[in-house]
Amino acid sequence: MSAIPCFEIVLLSSRQGIDLGAFALDASQMGLPADVNIRIEQQLLCGGKQQGSRLITLTVGDKQLRIVPTRAMAILDASRHNVRFGWDSPVQEVVHPAFVNQEASGGLGWLDGFNEMLVRCGYQWAGHPGQDGNEFLTLHGRIQNTPADDVILRVEQQAPWRVSLSGRVDEKRFKFTNFEVHTELCLTPSEPWIHVEDHLINRGSYAREYQAIYHNNFGTPILEENSQLHVAVAELSPFNPYAATGLADWNRMPAPTADFDEMVFNVLPLANAQGLTQALMCNANQQQGIEVAWDISTLPVLTIWKNTDSLQQGYVVGIEPGTSFAWNRRYQRTLGLVPTIQASEEKRFYVRFGLLVTPEEVSSSQQQIQALQQQAEAVILPQPLVTLD
Amino acid sequence: MSAIPCFEIVLLSSRQGIDLGAFALDASQMGLPADVNIRIEQQLLCGGKQQGSRLITLTVGDKQLRIVPTRAMAILDASRHNVRFGWDSPVQEVVHPAFVNQEASGGLGWLDGFNEMLVRCGYQWAGHPGQDGNEFLTLHGRIQNTPADDVILRVEQQAPWRVSLSGRVDEKRFKFTNFEVHTELCLTPSEPWIHVEDHLINRGSYAREYQAIYHNNFGTPILEENSQLHVAVAELSPFNPYAATGLADWNRMPAPTADFDEMVFNVLPLANAQGLTQALMCNANQQQGIEVAWDISTLPVLTIWKNTDSLQQGYVVGIEPGTSFAWNRRYQRTLGLVPTIQASEEKRFYVRFGLLVTPEEVSSSQQQIQALQQQAEAVILPQPLVTLD
Amino acid sequence: MSAIPCFEIVLLSSRQGIDLGAFALDASQMGLPADVNIRIEQQLLCGGKQQGSRLITLTVGDKQLRIVPTRAMAILDASRHNVRFGWDSPVQEVVHPAFVNQEASGGLGWLDGFNEMLVRCGYQWAGHPGQDGNEFLTLHGRIQNTPADDVILRVEQQAPWRVSLSGRVDEKRFKFTNFEVHTELCLTPSEPWIHVEDHLINRGSYAREYQAIYHNNFGTPILEENSQLHVAVAELSPFNPYAATGLADWNRMPAPTADFDEMVFNVLPLANAQGLTQALMCNANQQQGIEVAWDISTLPVLTIWKNTDSLQQGYVVGIEPGTSFAWNRRYQRTLGLVPTIQASEEKRFYVRFGLLVTPEEVSSSQQQIQALQQQAEAVILPQPLVTLD
Repeated sequence: MSAIPCFEIVLLSSRQGIDLGAFALDASQMGLPADVNIRIEQQLLCGGKQQGSRLITLTVGDKQLRIVPTRAMAILDASRHNVRFGWDSPVQEVVHPAFVNQEASGGLGWLDGFNEMLVRCGYQWAGHPGQDGNEFLTLHGRIQNTPADDVILRVEQQAPWRVSLSGRVDEKRFKFTNFEVHTELCLTPSEPWIHVEDHLINRGSYAREYQAIYHNNFGTPILEENSQLHVAVAELSPFNPYAATGLADWNRMPAPTADFDEMVFNVLPLANAQGLTQALMCNANQQQGIEVAWDISTLPVLTIWKNTDSLQQGYVVGIEPGTSFAWNRRYQRTLGLVPTIQASEEKRFYVRFGLLVTPEEVSSSQQQIQALQQQAEAVILPQPLVTLD
Repeated sequence: MSAIPCFEIVLLSSRQGIDLGAFALDASQMGLPADVNIRIEQQLLCGGKQQGSRLITLTVGDKQLRIVPTRAMAILDASRHNVRFGWDSPVQEVVHPAFVNQEASGGLGWLDGFNEMLVRCGYQWAGHPGQDGNEFLTLHGRIQNTPADDVILRVEQQAPWRVSLSGRVDEKRFKFTNFEVHTELCLTPSEPWIHVEDHLINRGSYAREYQAIYHNNFGTPILEENSQLHVAVAELSPFNPYAATGLADWNRMPAPTADFDEMVFNVLPLANAQGLTQALMCNANQQQGIEVAWDISTLPVLTIWKNTDSLQQGYVVGIEPGTSFAWNRRYQRTLGLVPTIQASEEKRFYVRFGLLVTPEEVSSSQQQIQALQQQAEAVILPQPLVTLD
Repeated sequence: MSAIPCFEIVLLSSRQGIDLGAFALDASQMGLPADVNIRIEQQLLCGGKQQGSRLITLTVGDKQLRIVPTRAMAILDASRHNVRFGWDSPVQEVVHPAFVNQEASGGLGWLDGFNEMLVRCGYQWAGHPGQDGNEFLTLHGRIQNTPADDVILRVEQQAPWRVSLSGRVDEKRFKFTNFEVHTELCLTPSEPWIHVEDHLINRGSYAREYQAIYHNNFGTPILEENSQLHVAVAELSPFNPYAATGLADWNRMPAPTADFDEMVFNVLPLANAQGLTQALMCNANQQQGIEVAWDISTLPVLTIWKNTDSLQQGYVVGIEPGTSFAWNRRYQRTLGLVPTIQASEEKRFYVRFGLLVTPEEVSSSQQQIQALQQQAEAVILPQPLVTLD
């Protein structure tokens, strides 16, 4: 943020002993002109399993984000011009991690709190639960059930009035892990983007394996019958035999479909010269869409999670850049998808959400993806890359 | 509650953002005449593992109930005319669910918080821990370690001044369970009854197995040497070989007995034309008793849990209507005791506690049970219904 | 504390409904003369996984202790004349037990919160995780992740102005355990000692096995290259084959050493006629040291935990009196190191820390240990006492 004058407020800091609790600040309280629509509010949630969770509502221009510091700075949902980006999970509460036992039910306890638009999976491991050598891995790692610290809002005092909200999440276990994840999201009043930039730092003395999946989930209204997915594909393959039966329609979405369950497709994307690629899901009439762009240098693969079951079960599609696919870690070493972070090394993950609410924005994103696809023809493999036991 | 004028106050609601915390209201604050003895108080408990638990004390006429919204609206204990109904567990704290790991010690962690008079077991499963096919089931299911939401007190503004306290408890896991349990307890100043009426709703799209056991537990003063249990029995059988050795005395209670541990008896009860049955445990001189009545249409079986060990270990008898017995679920399908709830279906469970404090009340209950028994002679089976492996 | 006039204040009590929260009291508020340097402060920690933890800072003369009631009255660290006693774990937060799943990762979840100077292990079991017959034991038992109740400060109103801080921690599970641990630490302004006196009481009706290890941990500045350990050794043996390779240097400390990991040595100590023994670790130039003295009647063995890995990994040495060594319980019965506590019995554990900050104090402690060693020559066994499977 360099030399630009900046309003800064610490919401939560163990070191400084700051915990703002419930509060709200508007633009004028941040020293901004009255016509700049920026606002932040934090609520202390109550009732059921959300007792103790906090929810930050951040308004920036025509966008509104709900962020959960108690759950690793997840984005619960976002909206732009009243178009909602997110989904309706059967889990409706913002579940406090104290009520989640990730070891439960063979490592599936994570699903008890799963309902956000942006869910981080990692960073010691991600993917399906199960044994990997001597370690039992629970679904999608521990980060999402870890409360953040050092939650800080910064608002630049001049156009384009850049707003950032950062938080640090630790994954530390004596003798095993000494990871810090420094998360930051940025946006401006006038642009459709949410920039997510995370840094994983290994504070330990030894190199460690790590994995990350940005489990980004979208339901109605973007998802509906004949919503279309656009991805610049180098190679696409089914996650398992069931997905192999859905290859022909991998990018076309059905209406909510009882017993559909989920089909998962694994993609190696094509990126531009800067290493950026993007995927787009637009609604049937192409008026609205969600664009997910990311840097493939640290997130080289994409999982498409087509979970178009009934509305009650959670009608949702995931557009999930990752270091890895969603299989258990034990399947991914031979694919080169279990990277290592050296002692004191820092890994940067960049994901950008485009909240597209006009046909022009949608069409522009489509064209960019078509341009990326010019580099090569998509290879569609009929079978999964690995045989699951 | 229809057209009767009603005082209503929300104690806790995530949707409304209401959390009353510590408070007390007396009859006049509820708009009631001064001579109607109705009062509610909520305390925020502190210390040890009860930090964060809430306790509601509800006084209605000559009865006083202590209810734990943080533990699924459990009834910690009740009293009428200073006779206590409940028991003394070695666990003395109102343990907050955040301190209970149900997966611990082979699925026995539930026992770390077990001390209430009314403990709900269920609703995905109930019974002993262990593997059932691909699922590892922890003891007695998850509901009791789930905090309630939408906790609401209602008091009718005219005689008989009916008081109800309701709360909703969710059991939700993406892809697996979408259950809501709407609990309600009702009582009036002049009657000896606590009416418990719960509704289980399956909000998911698919039929699911479910189980429920109302684990109602009573110690001194009702339980003492020569306390007697009265049950309208169609068929009674021992839970296991140890209980088989105690069949002759299944309904007579010993003094606290070191090394007794527990004997469990499984009962198919006889009900009246409306489907109601009842069981009674009265003290030795039949001056006081606890009557448990219930609707067998959804709670067809009764577990009698004779845990008459030493006072320090928890001298207690359970009178437990259920969908099922207390075995692990895998043993009960062949007995037809693992029911299914369809998508959007609602199951009603009704249990009524009679807090009997006079010989007349006790004798009247005995006579009703004798009348039920007239329908058939009790069949006592010498061996358990299933062979445990 | 008998007849000596005493200032007493309850910080936390479930029975009395007292929870002081954040507060501070100085000497004058305790009725003490202004020149008596005694002060207590309690903070409510916030941020990350320490949300909900409390931290008591107790100043007594030239000593300052930080105590964590939320984690079983652990001593986070201590200082005297600005010399710090404690260590720097990769885990920097005072982790609230609600965020620790001890069952995770094969029973290693305890390590997620491990960073204190005094960590109690026990009391149902201590030692390494793993199966022991029908029971799966998690690392070092449950006590450290259990919040205390009945936290009470007492300050005598006359010289030597003895200060005590006590707290009770329960380990209770219906049918299994009914343990209470009454902890107390005492100190005076003028002396270098922290006296820790704990009483384990079995409130159940049956005898139970128990174990305790006082996992006392010290890093810089006491620990540095050429820090020396002094122990009155009857017999010393390596914990495992790796430690067997380090026997020659068991009592000399290296600088932080990458890949050192840990060497553990098992000691049977020599005690004086009163059953007291002591161990000392002093820094290289013998100006400062930590002395740990204890009563071997209930803590008969000593574990030396030489974890002199890199600073980032946690450069630390443990001086750990115990009922038992650090192996899983299943290895220790044949060694006679799994004691039993009878019904209603009380076991007393006494550990004294000497915070030594002058060459004279260090030298005096060395001489006392040499005197103890006069009783017998140390026997050094080349192999572990048991063969681990």
